[in-house]
Amino acid sequence: MTIYQDSDIFIEKEISQIPWIKIFTKEPYKELGDVPKELRVKLWEVYDIVEDEMKKYYNPKKINMASFANMLPRVHIHVMARFEDDNYFPNPMWGEKLRDTKLQLPDENLFFETLNKKLGQFL
Amino acid sequence: MTIYQDSDIFIEKEISQIPWIKIFTKEPYKELGDVPKELRVKLWEVYDIVEDEMKKYYNPKKINMASFANMLPRVHIHVMARFEDDNYFPNPMWGEKLRDTKLQLPDENLFFETLNKKLGQFL
Repeated sequence: MTIYQDSDIFIEKEISQIPWIKIFTKEPYKELGDVPKELRVKLWEVYDIVEDEMKKYYNPKKINMASFANMLPRVHIHVMARFEDDNYFPNPMWGEKLRDTKLQLPDENLFFETLNKKLGQFL
Repeated sequence: MTIYQDSDIFIEKEISQIPWIKIFTKEPYKELGDVPKELRVKLWEVYDIVEDEMKKYYNPKKINMASFANMLPRVHIHVMARFEDDNYFPNPMWGEKLRDTKLQLPDENLFFETLNKKLGQFL
């Protein structure tokens, strides 16, 4: 599911208990340092907007961010809103599962709409 | 162990089988978006230099990067050089351990010296 796209980047949702999105460059690159400087700057601007909107909409305990792509070496940035009672907290989402809870979160579609609008305004 | 520091940032080594360093801002911030814009730009410049030097020195299969700080909410960036035969690859370093290998890597002290010099030149 594509939440946002323009000529340089696209944003997808990761299916998870928590709010979790992935920012991709349209052109594939192996490492962050391989992304052309101007696009790299834009990538971090996009990250900043996503983080900000996630904080405002979900009021999470913490934002987590990661870039691995070990299986398929194509740079993308994970942005995750973490809550004290999510299944893995305080572990990273790739760590040991600690519990099995049902989070009460606001409607994600409204978040995606808001994020899409904000990114369209600033980019 | 501090590998580099200036008035804004410091870099520490994480004890691990793989080359793994952590970039901190001297002033603590909870989230990346809380770091003042100018310092955030510098943080990513530092990241770029670390990634570049890691690639040149270790020739890893992939670079991994992450920012979690769930236990102690103080932003820092993990930079990890990953190898096909490291204990967790292709899992993130926080994932399931898959094997127990002894990596043959070049002397880390020379890497730290080179990185320190490079950061001193560019910042």
